[in-house]
Amino acid sequence: MSLFIEICGGVTAPEGFVATNAFCGIKATNTGKPDIALIYSPVPTVAAGTFTTNKVKAAPVRVSMAHMRSTDIRAIVANSGNANACTGLAGIEHAKRMTRAAAKALKLRERQVLVCSTGRIGVELPIAKMEETISDMPKALLKDGSLKAAHAIMTSDTFPKEVAVELTIDDKRVRIGGIAKGAGMIDPNMATMLSFITTDLAIVKNDWQKMLSIAVEQSFNRITVDGDMSTNDMVLALANGLAGNAVLKRSHADFKKFQNALNYVTGKLARMIVEDGEGVTKFVEVNVKGAATYQDARKAAEAIANSTLTKCAWFGGDPNWGRIMDAIGYSSARVREELVDIYYNGVAAVKNGMASNTPFAELEKIVRQPKFTVTVNLQLGSAEYWVFTTDLSTRYVELNMGE
Amino acid sequence: MSLFIEICGGVTAPEGFVATNAFCGIKATNTGKPDIALIYSPVPTVAAGTFTTNKVKAAPVRVSMAHMRSTDIRAIVANSGNANACTGLAGIEHAKRMTRAAAKALKLRERQVLVCSTGRIGVELPIAKMEETISDMPKALLKDGSLKAAHAIMTSDTFPKEVAVELTIDDKRVRIGGIAKGAGMIDPNMATMLSFITTDLAIVKNDWQKMLSIAVEQSFNRITVDGDMSTNDMVLALANGLAGNAVLKRSHADFKKFQNALNYVTGKLARMIVEDGEGVTKFVEVNVKGAATYQDARKAAEAIANSTLTKCAWFGGDPNWGRIMDAIGYSSARVREELVDIYYNGVAAVKNGMASNTPFAELEKIVRQPKFTVTVNLQLGSAEYWVFTTDLSTRYVELNMGE
Repeated sequence: MSLFIEICGGVTAPEGFVATNAFCGIKATNTGKPDIALIYSPVPTVAAGTFTTNKVKAAPVRVSMAHMRSTDIRAIVANSGNANACTGLAGIEHAKRMTRAAAKALKLRERQVLVCSTGRIGVELPIAKMEETISDMPKALLKDGSLKAAHAIMTSDTFPKEVAVELTIDDKRVRIGGIAKGAGMIDPNMATMLSFITTDLAIVKNDWQKMLSIAVEQSFNRITVDGDMSTNDMVLALANGLAGNAVLKRSHADFKKFQNALNYVTGKLARMIVEDGEGVTKFVEVNVKGAATYQDARKAAEAIANSTLTKCAWFGGDPNWGRIMDAIGYSSARVREELVDIYYNGVAAVKNGMASNTPFAELEKIVRQPKFTVTVNLQLGSAEYWVFTTDLSTRYVELNMGE
Repeated sequence: MSLFIEICGGVTAPEGFVATNAFCGIKATNTGKPDIALIYSPVPTVAAGTFTTNKVKAAPVRVSMAHMRSTDIRAIVANSGNANACTGLAGIEHAKRMTRAAAKALKLRERQVLVCSTGRIGVELPIAKMEETISDMPKALLKDGSLKAAHAIMTSDTFPKEVAVELTIDDKRVRIGGIAKGAGMIDPNMATMLSFITTDLAIVKNDWQKMLSIAVEQSFNRITVDGDMSTNDMVLALANGLAGNAVLKRSHADFKKFQNALNYVTGKLARMIVEDGEGVTKFVEVNVKGAATYQDARKAAEAIANSTLTKCAWFGGDPNWGRIMDAIGYSSARVREELVDIYYNGVAAVKNGMASNTPFAELEKIVRQPKFTVTVNLQLGSAEYWVFTTDLSTRYVELNMGE
């Protein structure tokens, strides 16, 4: 028996959770697309979260970080089309008003609601209109509303992102669900990236937070599209205990099993975000092995994943390993050029810092595929790191040359 | 009287220096363009140099760094079309053979010749053919050969880069000349960037090296096109003393005057490199003021200058200051969002971390121009830093998607 199975239903797959969306018209241009999402649990939840490390934090990030201290989070309200970032004290008040509107409609206290925004920076929210829209949303909450919520948080995403899994703990059926949005400005340590995770597991806050942090480190923090890190990134995770298991302790044999299932959910969402990166034509897994230290492995992998020149070469189907050598060299990782091996899909491009015997055409055939791996062996130790990245296309530039 | 005047003649403007180029056919595709440059001084010179900090250093970088210790450098031989990087011990031997060929033809010792290469990484030099070409070059050396040398080091550059100035020290006419190549992979701390500086000033090696380091820090280390730093970058500077001045000491009143003239030469070459960056349509001066420390100012300026999203916005003529706020925020510089002011050409876009009252159209008009400045005031201290950068265009991607 496998340890977990993938199921349908996203964030509303776990017992109790319901979700919906609404169209408010937050963007100046009327797109007609839903732009507010609401997720709700009818029973108390234990909340965990990870937040952007950008020093310029959007108002909803600040408000949600404060509300995280509540012991009974019940809802998440999120909008697309406006980031409510660089909006000063008015922005903080608007983010609070979003939580207040949702709390009022759901008969909760303000601090029981978390809030997120994504979109253009520096523009005031049309808050009065949003309050009106939010007040009507509870009656539209659905047991299969996950996809609606996933749609409402999309910005330049081309498809909604959701996943759910089911596993058994102490003979109880436990589910984990998630939705996410990504597209541009994706970089390790949180990007313009929102993800909401739900589970019906019973777990204490401290353990839930640790689990989420591990899952995020292995997923959302390992993806990069353009190296820019956003002001608005958040991963919020709610556990409502409706599965009926005895509170899952770290000492329990299935603690690790649940962590693996959670890692699968965040990992799959992260992969979808990269695949849907703006103008992306290639999905590239970069592995660095044999580094002297973990930090060296990470620096080398991130330098490759963010090298503009390397990403342009990939876009053109060019296995230009010289640019990879160059990126490793300036990464600040310890490197001995004469020891470096580089592989595309396991086929040697570089041996001992020099061109391998592999015919160029063979490497070219790999890099022309929509997905491939780059593996670098520094041969200085045993530390490893991996990151998912993309190419850099003319379409990316076109998509970002003006909003 | 101005402190110096700009004159013609590039690296051959200073007394004694001669230069030339030749076509060898180093690239696989026969371009017919000159690909080897030779610069020569008939009398001993004092040499200074700055070299790429990339840990993957091309063979000519290693050979020139070793030869720098010679007390009587007389020539520089440089090729385009092949970087002689990631070429192992054979590459080192080939770089040495380039210096040996030039030395033999000029009746010098190998260690009196410096060597540079630029072009594709990981391909062996056609060294036998190059030796033959180099052996014929001395007879073609010309008193006005600077432009020929500038042409031969071009890669994807669209125009040759040279500059020269003249000043008076102790009633002697002193000249400084320079040529450079740039285009892609330009980043602070040396990029795929070569520059050769000559002067007929009499100066001791230690002072000359210090002067060059200061000039490079204020010029070539302040430019960025794509954030990638190359394996081959070098600035080489030769002073042959033919101006006839008494050796210029640090205590001399005109020491500073000469430094300023040298700064002008390297500054102008650096500016030309950015203006000629691959696919560049905008030249942008980024100034960060009011930082708590010099390192903070530098980190914030470099984060802006290398932000893919900000550069795409500029390409589209979009004064998207939200992306600048975002870049400052993730730069690791100390930032208090509510204190940040941002200006385009001195016109406020952001005051106290929020949109200013300036109409969007007014900012847009500035960013649609081919040159503009971005000034960020962090209001946390008095440290400053500036850097020259560019936009990121669809043409840049096209130029780099395959060589």
